[in-house]
Amino acid sequence: MNKVVLAYSGGLDTSVILKWLQQEYGCEVVTFTADLGQGEELEPARAKAELMGVKPEHIFIDDLREEFVRDYVFPMMRANALYEGLYLLGTSIARPLIAKRQVEIAKQVGADAVAHGATGKGNDQVRFELGYYALAPDIKVIAPWREWDLTSRTRLIEFAESHQIPVSKDKRGEAPFSTDANLLHTSSEGKVLEDPWDEVPEYVFSRTVSPENAPEMAETITIDFERGDPVAINGEGLSPASLLAKLNDYGRTHGIGRLDLVENRFVGMKSRGMYETPGGTILHQAHRAIEQLTLDRGAAHLKDELGPRYAELVYNGFWFSPEREMLQAAVDHSQTKVSGTVRLKLYKGGVYVTGRKSPNSLYSKKVVTFEDDQGAYDQRDAAGFIKLNALRLRLLGRRDG
Amino acid sequence: MNKVVLAYSGGLDTSVILKWLQQEYGCEVVTFTADLGQGEELEPARAKAELMGVKPEHIFIDDLREEFVRDYVFPMMRANALYEGLYLLGTSIARPLIAKRQVEIAKQVGADAVAHGATGKGNDQVRFELGYYALAPDIKVIAPWREWDLTSRTRLIEFAESHQIPVSKDKRGEAPFSTDANLLHTSSEGKVLEDPWDEVPEYVFSRTVSPENAPEMAETITIDFERGDPVAINGEGLSPASLLAKLNDYGRTHGIGRLDLVENRFVGMKSRGMYETPGGTILHQAHRAIEQLTLDRGAAHLKDELGPRYAELVYNGFWFSPEREMLQAAVDHSQTKVSGTVRLKLYKGGVYVTGRKSPNSLYSKKVVTFEDDQGAYDQRDAAGFIKLNALRLRLLGRRDG
Amino acid sequence: MNKVVLAYSGGLDTSVILKWLQQEYGCEVVTFTADLGQGEELEPARAKAELMGVKPEHIFIDDLREEFVRDYVFPMMRANALYEGLYLLGTSIARPLIAKRQVEIAKQVGADAVAHGATGKGNDQVRFELGYYALAPDIKVIAPWREWDLTSRTRLIEFAESHQIPVSKDKRGEAPFSTDANLLHTSSEGKVLEDPWDEVPEYVFSRTVSPENAPEMAETITIDFERGDPVAINGEGLSPASLLAKLNDYGRTHGIGRLDLVENRFVGMKSRGMYETPGGTILHQAHRAIEQLTLDRGAAHLKDELGPRYAELVYNGFWFSPEREMLQAAVDHSQTKVSGTVRLKLYKGGVYVTGRKSPNSLYSKKVVTFEDDQGAYDQRDAAGFIKLNALRLRLLGRRDG
Amino acid sequence: MNKVVLAYSGGLDTSVILKWLQQEYGCEVVTFTADLGQGEELEPARAKAELMGVKPEHIFIDDLREEFVRDYVFPMMRANALYEGLYLLGTSIARPLIAKRQVEIAKQVGADAVAHGATGKGNDQVRFELGYYALAPDIKVIAPWREWDLTSRTRLIEFAESHQIPVSKDKRGEAPFSTDANLLHTSSEGKVLEDPWDEVPEYVFSRTVSPENAPEMAETITIDFERGDPVAINGEGLSPASLLAKLNDYGRTHGIGRLDLVENRFVGMKSRGMYETPGGTILHQAHRAIEQLTLDRGAAHLKDELGPRYAELVYNGFWFSPEREMLQAAVDHSQTKVSGTVRLKLYKGGVYVTGRKSPNSLYSKKVVTFEDDQGAYDQRDAAGFIKLNALRLRLLGRRDG
Repeated sequence: MNKVVLAYSGGLDTSVILKWLQQEYGCEVVTFTADLGQGEELEPARAKAELMGVKPEHIFIDDLREEFVRDYVFPMMRANALYEGLYLLGTSIARPLIAKRQVEIAKQVGADAVAHGATGKGNDQVRFELGYYALAPDIKVIAPWREWDLTSRTRLIEFAESHQIPVSKDKRGEAPFSTDANLLHTSSEGKVLEDPWDEVPEYVFSRTVSPENAPEMAETITIDFERGDPVAINGEGLSPASLLAKLNDYGRTHGIGRLDLVENRFVGMKSRGMYETPGGTILHQAHRAIEQLTLDRGAAHLKDELGPRYAELVYNGFWFSPEREMLQAAVDHSQTKVSGTVRLKLYKGGVYVTGRKSPNSLYSKKVVTFEDDQGAYDQRDAAGFIKLNALRLRLLGRRDG
Repeated sequence: MNKVVLAYSGGLDTSVILKWLQQEYGCEVVTFTADLGQGEELEPARAKAELMGVKPEHIFIDDLREEFVRDYVFPMMRANALYEGLYLLGTSIARPLIAKRQVEIAKQVGADAVAHGATGKGNDQVRFELGYYALAPDIKVIAPWREWDLTSRTRLIEFAESHQIPVSKDKRGEAPFSTDANLLHTSSEGKVLEDPWDEVPEYVFSRTVSPENAPEMAETITIDFERGDPVAINGEGLSPASLLAKLNDYGRTHGIGRLDLVENRFVGMKSRGMYETPGGTILHQAHRAIEQLTLDRGAAHLKDELGPRYAELVYNGFWFSPEREMLQAAVDHSQTKVSGTVRLKLYKGGVYVTGRKSPNSLYSKKVVTFEDDQGAYDQRDAAGFIKLNALRLRLLGRRDG
Repeated sequence: MNKVVLAYSGGLDTSVILKWLQQEYGCEVVTFTADLGQGEELEPARAKAELMGVKPEHIFIDDLREEFVRDYVFPMMRANALYEGLYLLGTSIARPLIAKRQVEIAKQVGADAVAHGATGKGNDQVRFELGYYALAPDIKVIAPWREWDLTSRTRLIEFAESHQIPVSKDKRGEAPFSTDANLLHTSSEGKVLEDPWDEVPEYVFSRTVSPENAPEMAETITIDFERGDPVAINGEGLSPASLLAKLNDYGRTHGIGRLDLVENRFVGMKSRGMYETPGGTILHQAHRAIEQLTLDRGAAHLKDELGPRYAELVYNGFWFSPEREMLQAAVDHSQTKVSGTVRLKLYKGGVYVTGRKSPNSLYSKKVVTFEDDQGAYDQRDAAGFIKLNALRLRLLGRRDG
Repeated sequence: MNKVVLAYSGGLDTSVILKWLQQEYGCEVVTFTADLGQGEELEPARAKAELMGVKPEHIFIDDLREEFVRDYVFPMMRANALYEGLYLLGTSIARPLIAKRQVEIAKQVGADAVAHGATGKGNDQVRFELGYYALAPDIKVIAPWREWDLTSRTRLIEFAESHQIPVSKDKRGEAPFSTDANLLHTSSEGKVLEDPWDEVPEYVFSRTVSPENAPEMAETITIDFERGDPVAINGEGLSPASLLAKLNDYGRTHGIGRLDLVENRFVGMKSRGMYETPGGTILHQAHRAIEQLTLDRGAAHLKDELGPRYAELVYNGFWFSPEREMLQAAVDHSQTKVSGTVRLKLYKGGVYVTGRKSPNSLYSKKVVTFEDDQGAYDQRDAAGFIKLNALRLRLLGRRDG
């Protein structure tokens, strides 16, 4: 092996990995640090990488926020994807983009391997590696957590100290839980969360105030959609990442988007996580609301039936797969008229749709009205409709009754 | 035609129908009034029926609350059914039971027809009539709203007055909206709700306080489940109907379960409704939470894929159909171990799961832990797992890359 | 009503309809006769129409064979659609095209209505009319069979005779069965087929010899595919309609594609039909064979799961619906690499795939071989793959065992 | 490790495994040989096992044919399961039963491990091991082909010879292909089949004559079904295994059930196999035919949609999984009235349904007839049925037209 591109956060774990790769594989390490809106300074990662001997031209720090939201979050939102009925897939959706960019850098610098810092128990290893293999079938993948013997926190820190890797004070004790963050969400798991009967302590949350601490006064916003994607808040046009960031602000303030979940990992075990998806939670509700008005029933129901499968594919790491793309093609076909405005009330953890309108509305007051509809709908048609829908049940009833 | 069994609420509309049936068809009318927990006195219905000449032995008033919750609401809740992702199907699920009982009464009294008061634009006519035809394939069905010429409120009231049917003062003007209620929910639609951009006025709500008016203090409850069904609240065992009623009290107090929805009716149009499902909303969340711990992933994901179909069948009125029963058989097979306790926090419109435990838990702290798992899980297995999951993607990537 | 466009075959029934429309509605009739490969002369239809007073400029006779195969049959074949597991949808797929062209003509000549000759018991009325309404929502639809009183053969013939409509001798007795034909298939139903226990008499078949009468010698052909569609037979490039016609010749000769089916109609009853789909049967097998080599498993299995739904939509007449188009978008996305050659043996009713090859093959002899694969596949990966797939089952087994 | 139960065929490979286990693991080997109708003498397996030092009480030879067909083949046939649209799953369905019996024996003799002779590239290892783990979560599994270094035929034979394991002459050269057989089918793969463009040589087939060599005269049989399962042929009641054996005879004679398939293995690669499923192919067609008459449309279509998933689960080895059991519960619920008689014509590779009848038939000649139905069906109902089915399409058309 010659060169390896490491997904590098600049934190303790991936710094240890950086050093370990240099030692264990005797190869040049290229670092890649992505800004996905996790809300951390990225320049310190550059300094640290340089300190560990990574060549300046081998340090990649990319702002991927717009691409992330436009090409990953929004397409997924179009599908109303919820894993196991509840989870908005905030971690899952970021991995394919990191993998894609890592592979691009590998091609650019002539690296023959990629590495990541995900453990052997989680889903992220799968998501990274399926991405790598789909996009670069012959690349070598290194997953240090599955290989090395630094299997306890103590040994990891010993390794760091013996290799001049700075260890911040808060990393010295056992972290009470582990987190992942990007523009869509923050997830927390492990340690104090490991007993699914124990209530999640308030200090675990970092992206939202608690509903109890949210303002006493509700706030009303509008979101405009075009072809299935949000494009403006309160009438102000915003780029994808800016829009999601703004929704995150609203969500944070109003205590929106907390989810305490026991979920089924692709690797076969159950885990308990706490997710905060403030803006995404608002967006999900709003998208459903604009679809209610603009999607035909046939399209809507087909989407609802395909949704769990789509979500499972994203969760399991099959973003770059033909079947996810096929489902996306179906979903996207349905979105051409999903434009209009949704009004929402935000209040103490809740998102309440209070109105929706669209130039493409399929809602017909003329047809639905209880009042005189002037022939828009002939109630007598319902008799035949019911009779023929009932025919097979009547034949059954006669046989079995 | 000889005798007809009318689903009779005792209200103005069905009283007019009663009289109209006597006149138009010259037949004996049998009334059936069901207590499904709608929260109205039923004895006045008896007096009114008698007044209009219905024989005492032809007046049926049944308390169906326990049957309703045990045999209709709970089986549906086991399926986590949500129509169009959001609606808990409170109206839909009551119709089959009414139809079933109406048919039983028809057989008992030797009636050859049944009648209902649902209009020709809605779903309820379909749900009633599919139930009738499935259970009594050769019964005659009368749907006065599709037949008569009393098509305006004015004419209906004129008919009532000219036939000595009492018209209460609040019925004289146009009702601002139309409602349906039972132990699971109250729905409202029409009139002031007809523009889906207009916010629903507060006076529409009857089953819940608004989140803003809910207590400042959160309340925590526990629900115990056995084999997929709730059996106790805060440790106190309750019958199905009592349990749902108690959850309704909690939900009402905390402003839980309001839903403003634009939905697709089976008859082909969109309508806008406001639903209040206080207890059902709590129950839905709690059931998902106990399943998270006790259902295997394969079962859970299959349920999630079948859920939209199940909900559509219930919504469209196909409760008594082989395909709903097949789905129920699959769902029920999955519930044998869905027992345990869920803890929930109720606060200003929100239901928050804060813990769940079960003697049948499939969650293994030993396997999932970030700490030393003493061999419960071999991280190296993940390498092979990923490699073989990736194989087809690599072959694809080699071909297409 | 002013003008009506009638789907006119030139046969007895639609000639009676033509006259009846003129009389009953007092309107001008425009005739539309489509060549879909049914194998009948169409010019006599012109003469007959003229005879009944249709203006020359109101007689439309269109050769739609290429459009039919290219835009309807082939897209459906890409989906491997089989209704109820067996039926290749030969009648269903022709109706939307007829409806579309009829609506186009209506717009062209300024007609405000369309009419068809399908009965009130079948699926075709639904397919025609859903097409009309989807493409021209406000058009008036006339279905004489549901309106008039010519409900017996005798009265129909009387009407014909009293209006100088020629009645050929073979129409005078009761036809032993009813047929529909186009380039994809011939269907027969009714009369001698009405008892599903009775064997279909040999004289019912018109498109194929019986397997017993097929040649004693098998014949081998190849079909080339490009992007999911067949483009050549035995290396000779052919237009869509020519290709299907040629496959029909092969199928006819070798007794291929007969299907005796009891099916469920959309209108709620079961019917028994005999279908002959000679070329389509060959094509269906061949398409599956080329997909075996060129489609990824994820894509293939998703297609298999969506197939029954797609077929149901086509059968029920929802060709011009958002959900059929969404499924088509998914299917078409999968077909970009479905190119290559399939070799088939045709013998006495059977179609046997004997080989397939493709420049886009995903089959890797190097990986699959029982012999030394030189590291293309590491068998030890399977251990981890199985262990993690088994993990949830082991946790279950420990709980339930 | 103490004792291991080996799935032992008595052939060369599993004999080598037997010896290798004794040597490598120094443990006692218990052999289990199942009669699944593979058509081989099993007593030689006993002699060979004894020769290699297996204690008589540790040699298990069980006739599982009836259990195999009754509890595995028939339930799968009720689901009309076809993997990738074509494959009747003959190998897949046998593995869970072998695994189950092996685990039972392990418990009986106090063994702590099980072993099988499947390679690391195939599906069978997965099917065996998922079965083991589901039924005995803590059992140790040994898969010698993934562990040892006998990776070429030459080394295997050397090992055999150096350990006094008899090597029959035909095993000395490279076998031209590999086979698996049981009462349901024989599969062949590898070697001469490895190029999917090459036609399968006639000598590969062992269970059927070629269609060309089948009798010139068609043969007609009837199969009686009860509750979804076949119970009699030509009126003669037969046990499950006897019935399938008899159908195999018919199929063999008439050249029925050959399938040349390129399929997607669960482990991620494509392989090419030749399957012969003579009786199963007849049964599959017959079961569909009796369902046509006795299953309601709703049940039938739901089954068709669930079928591919069911087949995938069986193929991938998830027989003992909650999701397969849930699907089975749904399928079995549908079969209570699937009784009656199917008549089939067998001719030169083809199975042709020529009639079906049932006391539970839902086919109504009275309703479907082209002739006067005396009011059984009111054609005018179709107008309303179509109008309401079209309503959403019209609203769409008005918006988008």
